[in-house]
Amino acid sequence: MSGHVYIGADIGGTTIKLAFINEEGQIMKKWEVPTNTDDKGAAIPDDIAEAIEQVRAELGINPSQIMGIGAGAPGFVETSTGYIHEAVNIGWKDFDFGQILSGLTGYDVWVDNDANLAALGENWLGAGRGCKELIAVTLGTGVGGGVIANGSVLNGANGTAAELGHVTVIPEGGAPCNCGKTGCLETEASATGIVRKAKVAAENYEDSALHSLIQSNELTAKDVFQAAAEGDEAASVVLHQVTDVLGMAIANMAIVINPEKIVIGGGVSQAGDQLLNPLKTAYRKYALSRTAEASTFEFAELGNDAGVIGGAYLVKKNK
Amino acid sequence: MSGHVYIGADIGGTTIKLAFINEEGQIMKKWEVPTNTDDKGAAIPDDIAEAIEQVRAELGINPSQIMGIGAGAPGFVETSTGYIHEAVNIGWKDFDFGQILSGLTGYDVWVDNDANLAALGENWLGAGRGCKELIAVTLGTGVGGGVIANGSVLNGANGTAAELGHVTVIPEGGAPCNCGKTGCLETEASATGIVRKAKVAAENYEDSALHSLIQSNELTAKDVFQAAAEGDEAASVVLHQVTDVLGMAIANMAIVINPEKIVIGGGVSQAGDQLLNPLKTAYRKYALSRTAEASTFEFAELGNDAGVIGGAYLVKKNK
Repeated sequence: MSGHVYIGADIGGTTIKLAFINEEGQIMKKWEVPTNTDDKGAAIPDDIAEAIEQVRAELGINPSQIMGIGAGAPGFVETSTGYIHEAVNIGWKDFDFGQILSGLTGYDVWVDNDANLAALGENWLGAGRGCKELIAVTLGTGVGGGVIANGSVLNGANGTAAELGHVTVIPEGGAPCNCGKTGCLETEASATGIVRKAKVAAENYEDSALHSLIQSNELTAKDVFQAAAEGDEAASVVLHQVTDVLGMAIANMAIVINPEKIVIGGGVSQAGDQLLNPLKTAYRKYALSRTAEASTFEFAELGNDAGVIGGAYLVKKNK
Repeated sequence: MSGHVYIGADIGGTTIKLAFINEEGQIMKKWEVPTNTDDKGAAIPDDIAEAIEQVRAELGINPSQIMGIGAGAPGFVETSTGYIHEAVNIGWKDFDFGQILSGLTGYDVWVDNDANLAALGENWLGAGRGCKELIAVTLGTGVGGGVIANGSVLNGANGTAAELGHVTVIPEGGAPCNCGKTGCLETEASATGIVRKAKVAAENYEDSALHSLIQSNELTAKDVFQAAAEGDEAASVVLHQVTDVLGMAIANMAIVINPEKIVIGGGVSQAGDQLLNPLKTAYRKYALSRTAEASTFEFAELGNDAGVIGGAYLVKKNK
């Protein structure tokens, strides 16, 4: 086997996704290992190094073919050094991950925030292919984001760029956010936020289909979309509020970045056009018309592979 | 005279500022020529070429020493080609300014939005010296902005990046903006916006010192700051609203960019700490604490020279 090989690693709180990827972006091999969060995640670099060495040998890849490892972690990362300031879910704090992994493997290592790498993956091979300017928003349990401008991922002065979930959208009286602030986009447009809002809204609509689900404590964001599709008024009000505030937040980011593509991913994006149509309407209302003209909305295409593909691309861009 | 020379041009609706700048950023010569907006500004490239040639000869500079011209214009600019989509104050529309000026002078020409170039000037020799990430906000008649990320000016997909004055801060019921939207930052935090808000506020405060100025139609933003300093309640309310909304807007941009410095310029910034202290308080309230830790506020240092210095730096960065 010949040619350059790029290794992507996407480190989550439960599993570490790994992949060997060739120059064309084809995944040669992808697999997962469990994330060992014992002892503040101290063994993770060893686990990754061992997993990579085993698969390298299996695939018959020469170490000289490997251009490096691009790793993503959920937290505040110093990209230039691979130093992790903090990655709460994993247990790392002031952890010199990049250096350690490079020492163990002998490969060059680049590290970035996992949401930034997912944006980079979509930028290489997914919905934002080849864009110089891209905003990626992931609507899941939280709201994550990654921004590409002038063809590069934004990391910022201390690794907190593109923390799009923490843009303030409700200046006063907003719900409390995990970050310590109130009224963040995450409190309004994440799956969790949608459920919270639906519970509040249902109180004002006695006939709402949401009531029984709320009482059984099983209400999900998907239920809210479904109820809205069936004409439930409380659910429709929530959906309008969510898409309006999300459209405003994205428009405000777009006025800074002027993106060519806005890529929407995460579980909530499975609502498809029911999310996207009102979102586009809100976006056009709040964006400069020239900014809106330049940009299209796309759904993320790479799903769970976005992180490892982005990791591989980070290596490719730096080599 | 030896050494490389960079030419900066800052094209405004009334005058064109020009400067010859050496490698160290020293201004060798600066001067102005009137902006001839007749015939949709068609003669402007000739006027600039002629002015440059005359001063070049006077200073005894050899054409081979000149590395190029960096020009700023108020409007939507395609930086890579120097094509102006629209510059309303000057009269240009779909004007191939960069090519024309390059053809007339024989020098390479780079063009950018004037607010972006001012940010770049501050980034080279002013308040944001050497920052890789910088947000510059100009509070004048309008609100302008420039953003530097990963060490480069953001232009965006069609030249509308960093139009910071048009971030929506009042989602519903905001004042109409020149851009066609409502509730833009410019309607709330520009000198014009501050006066508009003071007029509204004074209606609710019969004893306000602002009344007589309003009646004589001479109220300025400076008067509002002065009245607030003297304890006038209406003026204090306005100042609080302005700094709160400006702090939120800057925090929301900072959550995208994660800047090291936030540079505040323009006429309103002459209010000094009376503006900056409440602005910092609001910023810290709305920013992620890690984002706030990374950034300091500074006043712009280069005044009217920022544009020509930024133009020269644009050339220097591209050569």
